[in-house]
Amino acid sequence: MAKNVGIVAMDIYFPPTCVQQEAMEAHDGASKGKYTIGLGQDCMGFCTEVEDVISMSLTVVSSLLEKYGIDAKQIGRLEVGSETVIDKSKSIKTFLMPIFEACGNTDIEGVDSTNACYGGTAALFNCVNWVESASWDGRYGLVVCTDSAVYAEGPARPTGGAAAIAMLIGPDAPIVFESKFRGSHMSHAYDFYKPNLASEYPVVDGKLSQTCYLMALDSCYKQFCHKYEKFQGKQFSLSDADYIVFHSPYNKLVQKSFSRLLFNDFLRNASSVDEVAKEKLAPFSSLSSDESYQSRDLEKASQQVAKPLYDAMVQPSTLIPKQVGNMYTASLYAAFVSLIHNKHSSLDGNRVMMFSYGSGLSATMFSLKFNNGKHPFSLSNIAAIMNVDMKLKSRHEFLPEKFVETMKLMEHRYGAKDFVTSKDCSLLAPGTYYLTEVDSMYRRFYAKKAKDSPCDNGPVANGH
Amino acid sequence: MAKNVGIVAMDIYFPPTCVQQEAMEAHDGASKGKYTIGLGQDCMGFCTEVEDVISMSLTVVSSLLEKYGIDAKQIGRLEVGSETVIDKSKSIKTFLMPIFEACGNTDIEGVDSTNACYGGTAALFNCVNWVESASWDGRYGLVVCTDSAVYAEGPARPTGGAAAIAMLIGPDAPIVFESKFRGSHMSHAYDFYKPNLASEYPVVDGKLSQTCYLMALDSCYKQFCHKYEKFQGKQFSLSDADYIVFHSPYNKLVQKSFSRLLFNDFLRNASSVDEVAKEKLAPFSSLSSDESYQSRDLEKASQQVAKPLYDAMVQPSTLIPKQVGNMYTASLYAAFVSLIHNKHSSLDGNRVMMFSYGSGLSATMFSLKFNNGKHPFSLSNIAAIMNVDMKLKSRHEFLPEKFVETMKLMEHRYGAKDFVTSKDCSLLAPGTYYLTEVDSMYRRFYAKKAKDSPCDNGPVANGH
Repeated sequence: MAKNVGIVAMDIYFPPTCVQQEAMEAHDGASKGKYTIGLGQDCMGFCTEVEDVISMSLTVVSSLLEKYGIDAKQIGRLEVGSETVIDKSKSIKTFLMPIFEACGNTDIEGVDSTNACYGGTAALFNCVNWVESASWDGRYGLVVCTDSAVYAEGPARPTGGAAAIAMLIGPDAPIVFESKFRGSHMSHAYDFYKPNLASEYPVVDGKLSQTCYLMALDSCYKQFCHKYEKFQGKQFSLSDADYIVFHSPYNKLVQKSFSRLLFNDFLRNASSVDEVAKEKLAPFSSLSSDESYQSRDLEKASQQVAKPLYDAMVQPSTLIPKQVGNMYTASLYAAFVSLIHNKHSSLDGNRVMMFSYGSGLSATMFSLKFNNGKHPFSLSNIAAIMNVDMKLKSRHEFLPEKFVETMKLMEHRYGAKDFVTSKDCSLLAPGTYYLTEVDSMYRRFYAKKAKDSPCDNGPVANGH
Repeated sequence: MAKNVGIVAMDIYFPPTCVQQEAMEAHDGASKGKYTIGLGQDCMGFCTEVEDVISMSLTVVSSLLEKYGIDAKQIGRLEVGSETVIDKSKSIKTFLMPIFEACGNTDIEGVDSTNACYGGTAALFNCVNWVESASWDGRYGLVVCTDSAVYAEGPARPTGGAAAIAMLIGPDAPIVFESKFRGSHMSHAYDFYKPNLASEYPVVDGKLSQTCYLMALDSCYKQFCHKYEKFQGKQFSLSDADYIVFHSPYNKLVQKSFSRLLFNDFLRNASSVDEVAKEKLAPFSSLSSDESYQSRDLEKASQQVAKPLYDAMVQPSTLIPKQVGNMYTASLYAAFVSLIHNKHSSLDGNRVMMFSYGSGLSATMFSLKFNNGKHPFSLSNIAAIMNVDMKLKSRHEFLPEKFVETMKLMEHRYGAKDFVTSKDCSLLAPGTYYLTEVDSMYRRFYAKKAKDSPCDNGPVANGH
């Protein structure tokens, strides 16, 4: 069996277009700090009419292959996680196949995995399992998480975002799965769903969604600790991990989640909780589960207690989620990318716990271990290739009015046929794919912005 | 690593409501034999307003667990393959969770896999890989394929159908994967897709879809033979398998597909083709690939040559697909169920080749080996539990007018909210789940027809 299977390489793409949350507050007539402090968000990325989940995933896949020097023939499995439905039958994976068909490689297993923001994690697990299975053929797996999170006007709108992430999967990885330490929680819930098929916007019960998230977190953590203790023969506490990365719909929920885990450790009498913290949390030890989800006092006390540990264990993973917003399936992995960006080679030997959540609902807590890896798959090279600082700095800020106007156009275009886009790729980086046309049969056409040309003359790359 | 991983148990559910293809021919004003001989179909199953892909999968999962005596706690992974979208974010898998939550089991990995009719195969591979992976926790996997295939009025309408299939996955199975013998073909095509999000009906290019299917078949067979030869050190021919089971949109395509494989063997000079056959196929040996897909003479000659082998190797798997119609993700596995139904314990030691196809497109040819297995997982017991004869015989034939009326109601209900169904479960077998209501928030409610009661008094089983 293949050993030390995990993430060998990564790349991230997010649109070069964004809007400041502070400007959105003013535009929406919200109280100052409602989005920036209340939600904890700085900025929100979004697709304009020339980008979508297919173009973003074409961009990130071709970028990963090129930058790490991977021949498209070396890919034996390709899976996509997404909850942005452009077609209800044809997978996003098939839209990516032209990249591989160009070199004659059509023998690539895997399709799309779907359940809200969890699809990327399902795809990742599937790919890792494939490498460890009897059907593995020795080639790499490739996982793509791609989503455009958009909401109707109202309180959920500032929790949007957009990104695509690609992860190369194989043995002897710098980021290895600790497969035995894993706890899942799956349940039937209507916290966030998309039953209105003609609309891109979800139906959201914000309060229920937050409670579902925290309940799933508790349940997964309990399972995770149980399995750790079963295999390691000793109690698990947060001190046994170096970092914790959360699915990040908005940063405030990540803050709450971490303090919730610390409260769990307090209730379990685990070693991560010192005497001072114990004293501060003692008044809440007799709350029922339900009460504990609702208690503002507990929330405040546990966040205060958790602050130093949060800064050390969580904060390094919050950069991109705060700057780009919720990226659905890509959200957890954009947080993970932030951690690698901030800590790169210093992660050698560290353990990171990951919490993936998808409404509906499905959630898993799992564990990864870092080692420095060999070029080009070293942590420092992965961080250099992803080049997060440059990508963030080269974005173009839209005024809220322009953002709203874009959303209106996108509403009109969602599920539509027989239109051409502006083909304006002036804001896109060279090498970026973009949508040019949807014909009268709903067939979608994409082009790629040429590397050595400022705009709009790339070859058609994905026509029928 | 777990050994002899594969399908441990199976069950199938299809609606008790159907329409005869001969009656449809007359009703549609089609020439006599157009559907029955031209398509090769006998009958078509369909959901009435009280059934959908969720109710069918609830039914088949609870039936499998009960009939084989599997405790819901023994399931560690549950995956669904479907292309029938009721919600664009919330997976069908989460609708099945109440069955497991009832006994406190929420630690169940897996979500939904999607690419047209291929999603079930993706889910099956994922589940088998999980059992073979380092993250396997010793419990069973469970794969569900569930679809309702409906088409707008016109030539594709008689190629509908509906069913759900459940497969229990584990080690020491009576149906074992030969994981090394596998060939996939994935490509970007618009042969059948569902870009009109508000409609349940697909956009279909019938002719292109058939050519895509046959091209994918050729490509998969080539890969399959290549891998067999690599691992076995000898040429593969159809004589090395006992049965071939095809994804079956309509039986005529299955006939064409088998003769296409024989034509491949002829071109490869493989041992399955005798001298008489060689002589009959010789005139076509210089056709280009493209020409060969279009040649009616080749089609006729190869089908004639293939007839005796078709009767032996393929015909035993055609019963349910001919009687129920295209079941999308469930179609291949309904054909496989037909084979077990017809041959049960005589399959011991046999090899069956499976061809899975999903438009868009993704396709895989893979290989399974049978052994008799131990009770309750013996082939004869699996056949007895599935009880296909009884299920087919107890169906209720609708007149075409009533079928068309049902389709109209279903069109109206697709994506709708705020309605109650008739709750008429008089035609459903005891133990069948059915839809009772979709509330103003699009939340769906199901009940289960009680075992010892003729109608409509089962407890609400899947409410929020």
